Amino acid sequence: MVEINGERLLQDLRALRAMGATGTGVVRPALSEMDMTARRWLLARYQEAGLKAHIDGVGNVLGQSANPGPALLLGSHSDTQPTGGWLDGALGVIYALEVVRALAEDPATKDLAVDAISWQDEESRFYGCLGSRSFCGDFGAEAELDLADKDGVAFSDALAQAGLTNVPRLAAADHNYLGFLEAHIEQGPHLEADGLRIGIVESIVGLGGMVFTFTGQQNHAGTTMMAGRKDAAAALYDLAHGINEEFPKVAGARSVWTMGRALLRPGAPSIVPGSAELELQYRDVDPAVLDRFEAVVRRLVAEVNGKGGATVEAMPSRVRIAAAHMDPGFQQHLTQAAELHAPGNWTPMPSGAFHDAGVVSTVMPCAMLFIPSIGGVSHDFAEDSHDEDIILGCQVLATGTAAILAAAAG
Amino acid sequence: MVEINGERLLQDLRALRAMGATGTGVVRPALSEMDMTARRWLLARYQEAGLKAHIDGVGNVLGQSANPGPALLLGSHSDTQPTGGWLDGALGVIYALEVVRALAEDPATKDLAVDAISWQDEESRFYGCLGSRSFCGDFGAEAELDLADKDGVAFSDALAQAGLTNVPRLAAADHNYLGFLEAHIEQGPHLEADGLRIGIVESIVGLGGMVFTFTGQQNHAGTTMMAGRKDAAAALYDLAHGINEEFPKVAGARSVWTMGRALLRPGAPSIVPGSAELELQYRDVDPAVLDRFEAVVRRLVAEVNGKGGATVEAMPSRVRIAAAHMDPGFQQHLTQAAELHAPGNWTPMPSGAFHDAGVVSTVMPCAMLFIPSIGGVSHDFAEDSHDEDIILGCQVLATGTAAILAAAAG
Repeated sequence: MVEINGERLLQDLRALRAMGATGTGVVRPALSEMDMTARRWLLARYQEAGLKAHIDGVGNVLGQSANPGPALLLGSHSDTQPTGGWLDGALGVIYALEVVRALAEDPATKDLAVDAISWQDEESRFYGCLGSRSFCGDFGAEAELDLADKDGVAFSDALAQAGLTNVPRLAAADHNYLGFLEAHIEQGPHLEADGLRIGIVESIVGLGGMVFTFTGQQNHAGTTMMAGRKDAAAALYDLAHGINEEFPKVAGARSVWTMGRALLRPGAPSIVPGSAELELQYRDVDPAVLDRFEAVVRRLVAEVNGKGGATVEAMPSRVRIAAAHMDPGFQQHLTQAAELHAPGNWTPMPSGAFHDAGVVSTVMPCAMLFIPSIGGVSHDFAEDSHDEDIILGCQVLATGTAAILAAAAG
Repeated sequence: MVEINGERLLQDLRALRAMGATGTGVVRPALSEMDMTARRWLLARYQEAGLKAHIDGVGNVLGQSANPGPALLLGSHSDTQPTGGWLDGALGVIYALEVVRALAEDPATKDLAVDAISWQDEESRFYGCLGSRSFCGDFGAEAELDLADKDGVAFSDALAQAGLTNVPRLAAADHNYLGFLEAHIEQGPHLEADGLRIGIVESIVGLGGMVFTFTGQQNHAGTTMMAGRKDAAAALYDLAHGINEEFPKVAGARSVWTMGRALLRPGAPSIVPGSAELELQYRDVDPAVLDRFEAVVRRLVAEVNGKGGATVEAMPSRVRIAAAHMDPGFQQHLTQAAELHAPGNWTPMPSGAFHDAGVVSTVMPCAMLFIPSIGGVSHDFAEDSHDEDIILGCQVLATGTAAILAAAAG
């Protein structure tokens, strides 16, 4: 049976961590100089592993097997959040590299075709899952037009800076993959809390959201009587509180919702705000739950607008993602591998976070494997996992990959 | 009877407006280059009007009468909000100049002693009513230490830039004023709504406030279940909504409260905020109402902290101001002048906005006169008043000033 090299895996994970390391975290946003340094480093590792490698026109790094296909594609993303953890994305990228190497070293698996990939900009510097979307034909010329990051850096300028202007882009249609496997840290507390070491993802939750724009009348906070106010902040607090009161009544067991962005203008303590913005995001595997959330939002918006104060307009957020279901056959192979290497210590589970596999599942079968996050912490410098869990997860992925390819050839 | 020159008044108001004019508004924050340009322009106007004038060590411009005293001090402030209106402060400053000129031109009033002043930084670039506080001994060395504006510009650097380092500062104790009169736009809708042209201020509302700091746990908005969250934003919406629900139950007829500043960190739609800040300000003439507001806040803070989510700590805002009562004798003279020039078209009223007269009333008798604001709009480029109201207000102030001085001379 194929065996991965745990020490080599950890060494490469740490080498990648060093690129953009900041305290215990990593700062390596998509298309930054450090991101491109890491991608060129990965290109060289792919080549050392015997893959034919290149970086495409959005920064995806693909390493292609010389073995006859159809191949299985493995990977994740090597870009990070603005202040990210060291394993989010990086884990799955280095797992893919190690699985390629481990399969090549074993006479029984050396002829299996595994390609490795690091997708670009999963973390939404410019556009969430930009690299995998581009691969799947879901990032067209319109999406690219006027695209900029939150500091106003144009996507086209960032591409030029990275030397990627007019470089050809990967397209799923040009390949004939069996499917895509992505390993990732859980980014949540469930595996650790339940004392489990491997999660086999059944589905990735769907995600919807609204951007609320409040319009009132800016005025002096001392001289404008309460009855005459059109206070954009008061309307915002009213709606946000209403959402937090009403959503639990229609939510599913694992529904989540967040209003993590709110902005008052002009934002001074002695001025009645004339305008405001609030962003709501909600997630569930069940589209019926998302529909119920939308209905609640529509009702609450109408209520706020009926009160005679500031008014509110709701617009669906740019990012709206349907729940993605993982391939049952792939899940079964990964489950068998998990039971082999960690008997009784694995579980099927949904993914509350979105992943490139959610995008790629629109064009080919996909599966995902999770390892525990210490304390459930992620998107934070404190993100970490135990070395033994990191090594175990890669071994399960290698065994599962070999089994899927063997079954396909069979 | 003394008569002001309405055309000269409007010309000087427009000349001052030109310094920092931006669209229909004015950008002339305290100690900016434009503010100092305006103050030097005013100094020259004071000198032309026969006053002995100088700029003190914080930027107050004082013009002193050569006539035997005790003098009456008239004025307001010539600094503006970051995006201010053209009359807020400027009106009372140019009124004082015009009253000095009008009294000097009338043989019956030419020997009356009127000083004119423009206070510095009423609008809180560095510290609210900094100039009048400095004059009243309420801006000590501790307040000055580490003082900076919201962009981090140090007060000491701004003073140096304005050439005011080590320039002596005015002190009320060095003068023997009869009192201080300040004219101002109403900055609210009451006079216009009631078809009135002059307001005689009885009291300036007291002001209190709280800064709330929320502490939660930053986390991934997809993988962190609702039950395990410590969401700083959710706690903020909860408290803000509670305040807006509970304050009306204990408020006075003209109480106002505002939560115009709120900040979520990191402020991204897909991250559960780990911390947040909210600022509450409330005003009423009755200190018992302010006490009731504080009690409600304490109760709501305890409730939020009892819910097991993010916690909140309440700190009183830096600025806490007791209600200020205007001098009854001065009010009577202004009322008689108002009845003379606008029979039946005036009213006694509270001031919902704070003013330098509120500070100065701690060291000498004060009174205030309001003219209508079109649409009640202020702290906004759209702020405006009708020319005939501007001229009428100045005439009432001139007549009232002469009457107060005549009565004092006995």
